[in-house]
Amino acid sequence: MRKEKLEELRSIVEELKTIEVKERVVEQKDKFLQSKSYNFKLNNGIIIPREKLIKGGKDGSAAIIMPILPNNEVLTIIEPRVFTNLTVGVGFPAGYIENGEDKKVGALRELREETGFVPNKMIELDSFYQDEGVSSALNHIFLALGCEKKFDQELDKDEIVKYMMFNYDKLFELEKMGYIKGCNTKLALEKSKVYMKGR
Amino acid sequence: MRKEKLEELRSIVEELKTIEVKERVVEQKDKFLQSKSYNFKLNNGIIIPREKLIKGGKDGSAAIIMPILPNNEVLTIIEPRVFTNLTVGVGFPAGYIENGEDKKVGALRELREETGFVPNKMIELDSFYQDEGVSSALNHIFLALGCEKKFDQELDKDEIVKYMMFNYDKLFELEKMGYIKGCNTKLALEKSKVYMKGR
Repeated sequence: MRKEKLEELRSIVEELKTIEVKERVVEQKDKFLQSKSYNFKLNNGIIIPREKLIKGGKDGSAAIIMPILPNNEVLTIIEPRVFTNLTVGVGFPAGYIENGEDKKVGALRELREETGFVPNKMIELDSFYQDEGVSSALNHIFLALGCEKKFDQELDKDEIVKYMMFNYDKLFELEKMGYIKGCNTKLALEKSKVYMKGR
Repeated sequence: MRKEKLEELRSIVEELKTIEVKERVVEQKDKFLQSKSYNFKLNNGIIIPREKLIKGGKDGSAAIIMPILPNNEVLTIIEPRVFTNLTVGVGFPAGYIENGEDKKVGALRELREETGFVPNKMIELDSFYQDEGVSSALNHIFLALGCEKKFDQELDKDEIVKYMMFNYDKLFELEKMGYIKGCNTKLALEKSKVYMKGR
């Protein structure tokens, strides 16, 4: 990893670090995280209760997009991850798919909103359940090839997203250093190997 | 994959499939899934609100254990995953770490409770955040070597866990066939490659 690159990353992490936390009282009905309770009857006759996590009225399925630039650099984002040890995370653009939205359309939308970049080709690498014991969130990993900056960022209120480019191999260094620590990004990195090794 | 092995798996999946769902009314305070709301002040002065998922009063950190038998077969579990398309999932023993419990102790406990197997060596492969935007759950992946059956299963009420042994390479076939679909199992499989390839 080049010293200047690492210093740029460190200065963004420093800027986005949490320095103070205050708990707030929020009415249950106004919360983003909700749950529903069910009884499930299995084929063997046993009935088991389970709770399902609901995020903002949706199941929480997300698209994760690993954006590759024409020079083969990878676009990564840096954002507050307030519940983690570092309080800041490095990863790939990602976001919840809207109700009724096609997963690829959602992926393109999230990539454009979070970074302003647009690809010329999308490849779906894999899909997986984020937390299958308590959620039906099915996440989709896309490789976005030939990405170019065409728009400004369009961030939601309270969303803070910085971005940087890294060589593919350097992402595994960032993972070893602990900057990349989320399962979505880690799994996208692993599943991308078959396409990216040797590029 | 041997035909008999696949048929054994299919008959367990058939047995554990969901055939009926009923929503239940549960008082909010009695729910397993809860959340807390906070305001976080960042180093750049910006204040952002975030909600944190709480599972049964804990942060939801889990241990995932990939148990290897002396003959190099891998012990996998089959359990109801009622929120997934198949309604049944294939994976590795896993469970929440208790408050104050050492992660390796928690891993050994979950392996013993869910399967009755005990290893002679544990190797931590990786750790990752399960859902870093809304949770501080930090999951730990262990490889458990030399596992032998020493106890009976000790399952929680409403917990249903069957198990089967597979050759390591066959697990990737099961993943391709869609039986392995959860991020914990998928990431454990990827992170185990460095230890398992060539065994």
